[in-house]
Amino acid sequence: MTTISKSATTLTLINTFKVAPDKQQTLIDLLDRATENVMRKQPGFISANIHRSLDGTKVANYAQWRSKADLEAMQKNPEAGVHMKEAAALADSFEPILYEVFSVHGG
Amino acid sequence: MTTISKSATTLTLINTFKVAPDKQQTLIDLLDRATENVMRKQPGFISANIHRSLDGTKVANYAQWRSKADLEAMQKNPEAGVHMKEAAALADSFEPILYEVFSVHGG
Repeated sequence: MTTISKSATTLTLINTFKVAPDKQQTLIDLLDRATENVMRKQPGFISANIHRSLDGTKVANYAQWRSKADLEAMQKNPEAGVHMKEAAALADSFEPILYEVFSVHGG
Repeated sequence: MTTISKSATTLTLINTFKVAPDKQQTLIDLLDRATENVMRKQPGFISANIHRSLDGTKVANYAQWRSKADLEAMQKNPEAGVHMKEAAALADSFEPILYEVFSVHGG
């Protein structure tokens, strides 16, 4: 279970992949395996939450890292790089955006 | 606090707004007020989590609803419609995407 709360330090990365519907599940499986085998072992990893769009054309990863420095260190890791290239090759495009949580309503 | 977990029924809406940096905080404040005053009172609302991009050009709302039918009922609510039009006018563009959670790693 992942929790979202307002934090001065946690970094949120929302990476949205556009993908052909017939490749959506393959991309999801790849991200799922890469997260379990590589990403979650990197320093500063907090969580990754893989989302499947109902229309079949998107996959979103809502990920939390301890800091921007930790995320950047992961991105330089060669093993992570292999998986990121595989995901990029499967997707039509992807857009990773760095956020901080401003407010949480309900829960 | 919001929790993300794999659920057969909960609907996740990630709405990403592109915005000029000098309007980012105004848009955030508008979404924040609209959520507190209107959205959270609608049937099926679970949570809304307003995110500010570090580069100033995006705002993301990570929202959870009990079902797609509840979300669609909210979108037809005239009071909610006023706020959604205000947000659309402030943003350069926005892209609401409906998801289900496929997997959760870490937490």
